[in-house]
Amino acid sequence: MIILGLDPGLGTTGWGVIVKEGNRLSHIDNGEISTDAKMPLANRLVAIDEKLRAVLDHFKPDCAAVEEVFVNKNPQSTLKLGQARGVVLLGAARNRTPVTEYAARLVKKSVVGTGKADKDQIAAMLRVLMPGLKLAGEDAADALAVAVTHAHHIR
Amino acid sequence: MIILGLDPGLGTTGWGVIVKEGNRLSHIDNGEISTDAKMPLANRLVAIDEKLRAVLDHFKPDCAAVEEVFVNKNPQSTLKLGQARGVVLLGAARNRTPVTEYAARLVKKSVVGTGKADKDQIAAMLRVLMPGLKLAGEDAADALAVAVTHAHHIR
Repeated sequence: MIILGLDPGLGTTGWGVIVKEGNRLSHIDNGEISTDAKMPLANRLVAIDEKLRAVLDHFKPDCAAVEEVFVNKNPQSTLKLGQARGVVLLGAARNRTPVTEYAARLVKKSVVGTGKADKDQIAAMLRVLMPGLKLAGEDAADALAVAVTHAHHIR
Repeated sequence: MIILGLDPGLGTTGWGVIVKEGNRLSHIDNGEISTDAKMPLANRLVAIDEKLRAVLDHFKPDCAAVEEVFVNKNPQSTLKLGQARGVVLLGAARNRTPVTEYAARLVKKSVVGTGKADKDQIAAMLRVLMPGLKLAGEDAADALAVAVTHAHHIR
């Protein structure tokens, strides 16, 4: 089963693809979709949509997983995140890829074993789980972490 | 020139189409796209996307206008609105329809003449501007108001 993890953001959307075969996880690829803050909002959303579509077309995931949102205290940030997240969820669903949401605490607990892990611990554990892993960045790491969480929660 | 006004929302997205010929405005149609709150989020976003696409395909607007967002004090509401708004902006931009955003105060001022108009005043003024107008609902009225605002601001 091919699992796509997603960490949506207007500036950077992380993605990570893993394969689960029995109890074995393997890393396929990970990356980040970045948009230019100087572009109009609608064009940034189109850029996310097009690049996500390329990822979906290339890897043909069986399912996708995304973190439930940490609602930012800054309403403008929440709005930006929401707009990007809407486009990402739409892109997966339009492709008939079922999307599951996981709470951030559960993602940390699934990957590191505690709900309070920091980013370095998560990256380190991802490298243990998938030796030789090269991470495109922090958002790609978050995307892989939620993909691993989904792998642990499906039969 | 055919102008599409949009008032995005996860539960209800209003839309309104007007034509500007010289200084004359005419109403073409208005409506609301509603989604079932019991459906998964991603499916609601797909429903908005598909119905908006039908509106774009049918009326072939030259441009679209949307209100700049009133950032809700409730972060969960802001997130929901953002997700729907991202899908709506994407839908228009993907269709190569340029989207302009207008502040809510400017919309009220353009339609009613004051930045503090209430919904009833806006609906009444829309009926004066476009005699015989039948409104699908409050969100459709808001969408028409932003379309009228755009008509006033383009040459």
